[in-house]
Amino acid sequence: MSENLNNYTKLPCIYVRKGWILALFFLKMLPVNAHPDSVLLRRIYDVALTQDFAYQNLYLLCKEAPGRISGSPASEKAIELTARFLREAGADSVWLQPVQVPYWVRGEKERLGYWDHGTFVSLTACAIGNSIGTNGMLRAKVLMVEDLQDLFRRNREETWGKIIFVRKAPDPRHIDTFNAYGGCSGIRLYGADSVSSMGALALIMHAITLSDHDHPHTGTLIYKEKYKPVPGMILSPLAARKLEAQLLRNPELELEMELDCENRGMAPSYNVIAQMNGRNRPEEIVLAGAHLDSWDLGEGAHDDGAGVVHVIETLRLFRHLNLRPERSVRVVLFMNEENGAFGAEAYAEKYRHEKHVFALESDRGGFTPRGFTVETNSPEGKRALEKIRGWAPLFAPYLVQYFESGYSGVDVSRLRGTGCVLAGFIPDSQRYFDFHHAETDVVETVHPRELALGAATIASLVWLVAEYGLN
Amino acid sequence: MSENLNNYTKLPCIYVRKGWILALFFLKMLPVNAHPDSVLLRRIYDVALTQDFAYQNLYLLCKEAPGRISGSPASEKAIELTARFLREAGADSVWLQPVQVPYWVRGEKERLGYWDHGTFVSLTACAIGNSIGTNGMLRAKVLMVEDLQDLFRRNREETWGKIIFVRKAPDPRHIDTFNAYGGCSGIRLYGADSVSSMGALALIMHAITLSDHDHPHTGTLIYKEKYKPVPGMILSPLAARKLEAQLLRNPELELEMELDCENRGMAPSYNVIAQMNGRNRPEEIVLAGAHLDSWDLGEGAHDDGAGVVHVIETLRLFRHLNLRPERSVRVVLFMNEENGAFGAEAYAEKYRHEKHVFALESDRGGFTPRGFTVETNSPEGKRALEKIRGWAPLFAPYLVQYFESGYSGVDVSRLRGTGCVLAGFIPDSQRYFDFHHAETDVVETVHPRELALGAATIASLVWLVAEYGLN
Repeated sequence: MSENLNNYTKLPCIYVRKGWILALFFLKMLPVNAHPDSVLLRRIYDVALTQDFAYQNLYLLCKEAPGRISGSPASEKAIELTARFLREAGADSVWLQPVQVPYWVRGEKERLGYWDHGTFVSLTACAIGNSIGTNGMLRAKVLMVEDLQDLFRRNREETWGKIIFVRKAPDPRHIDTFNAYGGCSGIRLYGADSVSSMGALALIMHAITLSDHDHPHTGTLIYKEKYKPVPGMILSPLAARKLEAQLLRNPELELEMELDCENRGMAPSYNVIAQMNGRNRPEEIVLAGAHLDSWDLGEGAHDDGAGVVHVIETLRLFRHLNLRPERSVRVVLFMNEENGAFGAEAYAEKYRHEKHVFALESDRGGFTPRGFTVETNSPEGKRALEKIRGWAPLFAPYLVQYFESGYSGVDVSRLRGTGCVLAGFIPDSQRYFDFHHAETDVVETVHPRELALGAATIASLVWLVAEYGLN
Repeated sequence: MSENLNNYTKLPCIYVRKGWILALFFLKMLPVNAHPDSVLLRRIYDVALTQDFAYQNLYLLCKEAPGRISGSPASEKAIELTARFLREAGADSVWLQPVQVPYWVRGEKERLGYWDHGTFVSLTACAIGNSIGTNGMLRAKVLMVEDLQDLFRRNREETWGKIIFVRKAPDPRHIDTFNAYGGCSGIRLYGADSVSSMGALALIMHAITLSDHDHPHTGTLIYKEKYKPVPGMILSPLAARKLEAQLLRNPELELEMELDCENRGMAPSYNVIAQMNGRNRPEEIVLAGAHLDSWDLGEGAHDDGAGVVHVIETLRLFRHLNLRPERSVRVVLFMNEENGAFGAEAYAEKYRHEKHVFALESDRGGFTPRGFTVETNSPEGKRALEKIRGWAPLFAPYLVQYFESGYSGVDVSRLRGTGCVLAGFIPDSQRYFDFHHAETDVVETVHPRELALGAATIASLVWLVAEYGLN
C-alpha cells in the first residue's frame, strides 16, 4: 500500500488503487484487516507507539513553561514553544492570533488557619483563581454549611460577618468523575458571590477531588457586578476534615485568612494555530483543539498539556506517514480556557464564517483513550454521531469503544450554531481529578503509552472526518 | 425493591416481584433503569465506591505480607490474613486446602557487572526465579543475540563457554500489553535451557517491561532434565542499554556474575477457600479466583494482591447487600501460581468432580475494568460468551465494554475439560508491566477507585452467573 490515499479511489466499502481492476468476488475474499482504513489506523498507532514525540513535547512544555496561566511569562514561553513544535511537526502554516486575556496573579501571601493555645494551626488551602485579596488580614468566625442550597436556607443573622465553609465533596458514586466534578464546580464558580449575597466575608470550600491528600485544587470563580466581591479559598481534603473536626470541638472558632492575589486587568496574548491544507477541499476545516494556558499551580501536564501534544502529534503523524486528507486539518491551541475563554471567543469571532466541518477538543487528560462524545442537539450532530459510530469497528482493535452523545469542550463549544459538529475526546477519567488544577499535575503523572494512544486515537478520527466528511 | 432476588420471577426481559400482576403495556413503560438487575448492579457499584474495604485489605496484605513467594514466611502470613478477611467478609465457610509447593530463595548475593579501568561497573539485574546459583563467581565473555531463534542459528564455537545476552525487548506496538509480554516470556521460561543446549554458561536477558527504568523484573524459568541447568538473570531496561553500548565498544568484554539463590525443595502450604452457599443449587459452584503468592520482589500489589481483594470483596458486597444467589459462590486464593501452579493443580485434583459452572480469574492487576474474556474452545464456552454478551447493556453504565473470546488464567485453566466455563477479568493493561514482578509493584501504584470498580465489575458478573446460570 502506498503512503498516500491520493492513490485510492472509493468503492462501496473498500478503497482500491486507481487503475486496478478487481472483480467483486475477489474483493469479498479480502480479510477484514486488508481494509485500507484499518491498515492506515494501524500505521498511525504503530508510529505513535514507537516514536516518543508526544511525551518529549509534553516534557518540554511542562518543564519550560509550568504554571502557564494566561498573561504570565510562562504562557508566553508556551506560545513560543508550541509554535516551534507545530513547525517541526510539518504544518503547512503556523500563525499566532492576537487575543486580550485577563491576567490574575496569586501573589505571595496565601494563609489560612487558626490559633490553638498560642500556636497557629495552618490549613492547607489556596486562593480560588480570580479571587480578590483580603487587603490585610481577615479574621472571622466560621459557619459550616453543606452546600449552596443549605447556605440559602440560613438566616442572614447566622451568615452575617462570617467566613462560610461549604463542606460538600464530590460524590464518589459517579463512574465518570467529570460528573462528580460537575456536582461541585458551581460552588467554586458562584460560591463567593453567594456568600456575599448573605452578608458573609469570605468563602472556603472543599477541593473538588475524589482523592484523599493534602493538596488544594484551584479553579476559577466569577464575580457578578450585583454583589460586593469577597475572597475565596479551597481547602485540601485533609485540611477540610481537620477544620470539620475542629468546628465540632469549638463552634466559636475564628479563622485567619490572608491573600494578596490580584486581577491585573487585560494583557496581550495569542492563540497558536497551525494548518495542513486539504488535498481537494482546503476551504473545509476539521479542527483539533486544546488549551495552551494552565493554572499557576503545577505544570498543567494533564490539564491541558496532554491535549496540546495530542493535537500537535496529529499533524506530525500525518506528515510522518505522508498523509494529506481531502479537507484541511487545523490545530488550535486556545489561550485562557481556565479563566475566561477569551481565546476561544476571539477565535470564534474571527473564524466562524469559515466552513468548520468538525471541531474536536481534547481537555480531559492524557489517560488511556476510551472514545468520543459528539454534541447531538443539532441535525448535523445527530448525523455525525451515526457516521462516527459506523467507524467504531476500525477503533475496536485499540479498545476505543465509547461513541456517545455528550458535551464537547469549553473552547470548541464557542463554534456552536455555525453548523460545525462539536466533539470531545474521552480518555479514562479515574485519575484525572487526583491532579486537576493542583501542584501535583506534573508530567511524571502522565504515562507515555497512554498519551501516545490518545494521540493516535485523535489522529485516527481526525483523519477519517477530514478524508470522508460527516455527511 | 427488596434486598433479595428471591422475590423476583423471570419474565421475558424483566424481573417482577412474585405475586405482582402487571399488564404488559405497563411493563413496557418502565424505564430501562427500573430493570432489577440494573438496579442491583448500581447498588453493587455504589457500595464498592463508597466503602474502602478492598483498598484497606490490599494495604494490609501488601504491608504485612510483601514478597509472599510460596513456601516463605510471608506467604504464611498472607494465608492467615486473607482467611481472616474472608471470615470478616461473611463467608458461610472458610477452609485451608493443604498443598505442597516449591520454595525458592533468592539469597543474599545477586551481582552482575564488569571491570572498567580498575572500577567495577554494576548492572542492575536480578536472578530469574527458580534459577540455580553460580556456586561462587562466574566470569565469562558475552555473546549478544537478538532472540532464541538467533541463538540457535549460531555456531557452538561462538556460544561455547559464554554468557548469552538475549537483547529482545517487548514490542510496544501491541495495544494489549499482555501480547507484548507473551512475545518475550518464552525467553525467560526456556532461555536458560536453550543457552545450556548451546554450551553456554549462563543467560542474561532484557526485562519484560515496556517502561524505561532501572528496575529488573523477575519471573520463573523451567529446567528440563535433558540439559545441565545454568543460571539466569534479568537486566533492567537501562542496564540492558548500558551493556549493549559497552559491547559495541568492547566485544571482548567479560562479565562477572554471582548468585546464591537456591531451590529448597517442597514445602507445606495452603490454598485459601471460602464459600457462600447457593440459595437453591448449592452444589453448583461459581468460582472467583486469584493467586495468593507473589514474587519475592515488591509487595505483589497488582500481581496479584489486587485480584485477591477483588474476589474477597465480591463475597463482602453480597453479604453487605444481603444477596444470596441461586448457586454457590466459591472464592479460591491459589498458592504458587508464580512458579509451578501447584496450588491450582491440587485444587483441580481434589475438586474437579464437583460441578463447577464457571471459574473466573483476576490476575491482570487492579486497573480500570474493561471487561472479560471467555474461553470458547468448547460448546459450553461459546454458549456462555453469547449469554454474557447479552448482559453487556447492564455493564455499559460502568464503561465495561469488552466481552471477547480469550484466555482465562493460569489457575482456573486447570479446570479445563471439566465442563466448567473459564473466564478472565480484563482491566486496562497499559501500566501493568511497569511494575510486574518488580520491587515497584507496591500498593501505592494501585488506585483505590480503579480497584473498587474492578471488584464491583467482578461481583456483578459473578452475581449474574450464580443467579441465572450460563445455559
